[in-house]
Amino acid sequence: MSKMKPRTLSGFMELLPAQQVLFDRMKQILASTYQLYGFTPLDTPLIEASEVLLAKGGGETEKQIYRFTKGDADLSLRFDLTVPLAKYVALHYSDLSFPFRRYQIGKVYRGERAQRGRYREFYQADIDIIGDGKLDISNEAEIPSVIYQTFTALGLRRFKIRVNNRKVLGGLFSLFGLGDQATDVMRAVDKLEKIGRDKVIQILTEDCAVAAEAAGALLDTLEAADPMAALEGLRGKDALLDQGIEELSTVVRYMGAFGVPQDHFAVDLTIARGLDYYTGTVYETVMTDHPEIGSICSGGRYDNLAEYYTDKQLPGVGISIGLTRLFYVLEEQGLLNQSLLTAPADVLILPMTEDLGPAITLATQLRAASLRAQLYNEPKKFKAKISYADKLGIPYVIFLGEDEVAAGAASIKEMATGQQQSVPFDQVPAYLLQRVAPMAQGKPIQENNDD
Amino acid sequence: MSKMKPRTLSGFMELLPAQQVLFDRMKQILASTYQLYGFTPLDTPLIEASEVLLAKGGGETEKQIYRFTKGDADLSLRFDLTVPLAKYVALHYSDLSFPFRRYQIGKVYRGERAQRGRYREFYQADIDIIGDGKLDISNEAEIPSVIYQTFTALGLRRFKIRVNNRKVLGGLFSLFGLGDQATDVMRAVDKLEKIGRDKVIQILTEDCAVAAEAAGALLDTLEAADPMAALEGLRGKDALLDQGIEELSTVVRYMGAFGVPQDHFAVDLTIARGLDYYTGTVYETVMTDHPEIGSICSGGRYDNLAEYYTDKQLPGVGISIGLTRLFYVLEEQGLLNQSLLTAPADVLILPMTEDLGPAITLATQLRAASLRAQLYNEPKKFKAKISYADKLGIPYVIFLGEDEVAAGAASIKEMATGQQQSVPFDQVPAYLLQRVAPMAQGKPIQENNDD
Repeated sequence: MSKMKPRTLSGFMELLPAQQVLFDRMKQILASTYQLYGFTPLDTPLIEASEVLLAKGGGETEKQIYRFTKGDADLSLRFDLTVPLAKYVALHYSDLSFPFRRYQIGKVYRGERAQRGRYREFYQADIDIIGDGKLDISNEAEIPSVIYQTFTALGLRRFKIRVNNRKVLGGLFSLFGLGDQATDVMRAVDKLEKIGRDKVIQILTEDCAVAAEAAGALLDTLEAADPMAALEGLRGKDALLDQGIEELSTVVRYMGAFGVPQDHFAVDLTIARGLDYYTGTVYETVMTDHPEIGSICSGGRYDNLAEYYTDKQLPGVGISIGLTRLFYVLEEQGLLNQSLLTAPADVLILPMTEDLGPAITLATQLRAASLRAQLYNEPKKFKAKISYADKLGIPYVIFLGEDEVAAGAASIKEMATGQQQSVPFDQVPAYLLQRVAPMAQGKPIQENNDD
Repeated sequence: MSKMKPRTLSGFMELLPAQQVLFDRMKQILASTYQLYGFTPLDTPLIEASEVLLAKGGGETEKQIYRFTKGDADLSLRFDLTVPLAKYVALHYSDLSFPFRRYQIGKVYRGERAQRGRYREFYQADIDIIGDGKLDISNEAEIPSVIYQTFTALGLRRFKIRVNNRKVLGGLFSLFGLGDQATDVMRAVDKLEKIGRDKVIQILTEDCAVAAEAAGALLDTLEAADPMAALEGLRGKDALLDQGIEELSTVVRYMGAFGVPQDHFAVDLTIARGLDYYTGTVYETVMTDHPEIGSICSGGRYDNLAEYYTDKQLPGVGISIGLTRLFYVLEEQGLLNQSLLTAPADVLILPMTEDLGPAITLATQLRAASLRAQLYNEPKKFKAKISYADKLGIPYVIFLGEDEVAAGAASIKEMATGQQQSVPFDQVPAYLLQRVAPMAQGKPIQENNDD
């Protein structure tokens, strides 16, 4: 029979077992951290009707989308988790209680040009809080705490959450007489980190016809060493600006109570996060040692989640982590914790007797004690069996021959040291639990200890 | 703006939050049970190259598949988890250690005609053990134990695992002189449960030209009250039959040591599980009170996982649970545990002061103690706030007004009883943990107590 060459599509991440365990650990930590803040899990379909998914229409997204027909149906794979959320909330509105806090960790699809570190199938891990008509500012203040706890739980230490407020930006533009060119100015400001102050001033003065003085004053404020102090000095001059300052101050004021250390948080007035959609607080998160990666967790406050489906005003605030891309970056940078136990089992049991009964009984006892036990009874040489445990990183091997069965004790070999010990059957679960439990405690991210 | 009517595609399960929590709990229990047996998680792409996915070709599957093009690429959504596993093992062969034990819980796609309880997107939860060249019979003997522990952990009690061996069937056919018609006879036997003995004999004698005597003798053996005893009486007459009896005996012999109670396990010689593919032990699992649902967990031993991709002989054994369908059935039958805590939070904190600091600090402390705490600061009437907790099923509500802050104690209301108690701030985590922890312990399936 002629064989088909097995391959995985380019742009699709497919991990080897040990990596997959680390990836799953990260997913699990995200889920349990989100849950601590009262977010409930959703799992919407990957396929939606194209007209529903593309209700907003247009843009770069539509080119990248996986769209196809099945029978009469025009279908598309979701390209983010926000549009399905909007559909979900509009569709199930009467069954939900607001504020509605949900998280979803799922795959999304974008047919981008394949390039290193860019994926066509990737996980997003989103949280959103949706209000019915209104949504209190305390929800916006809480988001940095979720971000901080999430990355801390993953093991990342050197990161910073940057916060801004779109009302502050809008207010400043209007204060400096740039209200009519707000969109163009926003676009220029959005490039500040990338192209620097001088080039932004050049764009503002040459392309946007902003007076040099106004451009300079705006950038002085945006880049102020103490942005909150700079903003305080401008209070009472513009209503939108005042509202933005009030919101931003509220967010800043509660950071301590939310457990976010000062050095992990900064107000950064240069953050815009795109041209429309966001209307209040916006968030970015950068790895301190790897600013080149860009934001690893972003989001913000929006006024109208589901405007394409319903007349109801549904304001919200949310953030998204691109987990697949983050995992790729962590691996590239050598930041995955290699000492974490990624073996499929805690212990490998090698029966050395014709009758497998005693080995099976022991395995059953270990599993009842929540230990991951694998029986290995393949007809291989002793060395091959040990090598199997070694390759998989299984930390303990139990030998069970006639002698052990007669003595009622298992020979347990610790793979790391090669040491072997005889342990009575009834004490084996406790013996192993005590040693294995700490191995599963580590965090998936481990930075160098040079900070 | 004209609105797009929000809808979810027919045949796609989209759950409300409380149901989703139950579904996720089931998924999590499957994963952790599989892990106890040394299975490692995989998460292969949902999209594969059509030529890879359809290497086997033909059949009903190809009609149901979601297949489309993107640029030059001919792509398909996976329709099961076995073909992606075959590809994975062939592709990553040199990076894997054998036996390779993996589980995968993921969505698969089949464009079936929509009907009640049938889904086009559904979860499969699979385990497989793949050997390199050979695979010891002990692996086949272990599978019923995984099935038993899985359903027991889910909370199901009234179910039975049925086991047969394809070599036994093949041996019996040849023993009764039906070797040449094996496929037709197998097809007839496969219908036994559905159409009954008389009709099967009719098919065998009329359509397959089997002598009435041979047909009767075959069915007498297959339907014997004690099938193992009936088989023992036939030892030594056919080599394949002998091998099958030996394997089946081995599987039966170790059930006790594997912790499977006698009343949850039966040899059933009438199980065939399709016409080809399986070559050794085959498994079915039925809910005792709902035989009409059919098998909720099936699988078996096969000889050649990846024959379309590689010359390597890769025998395996595996089972699959159709989780989406199972969930649907459980809900229909009222077997989901309604008393399980499905609320998004353990406690709702209502700040009653201008300064949110104390409420936020308390929430932060509770989360540090692994309690799921939600702050609720929307400007609503008191009654609406309580109603919010009530609707979501949040078991505890904390009031934090000036008095409570001054006294250093929170007022905690137990929603189930309406009782309210004052608890010093530092004792709140322990107070709640003690009460909430048991609520999360229940199992997702709860049968009636009438057995």
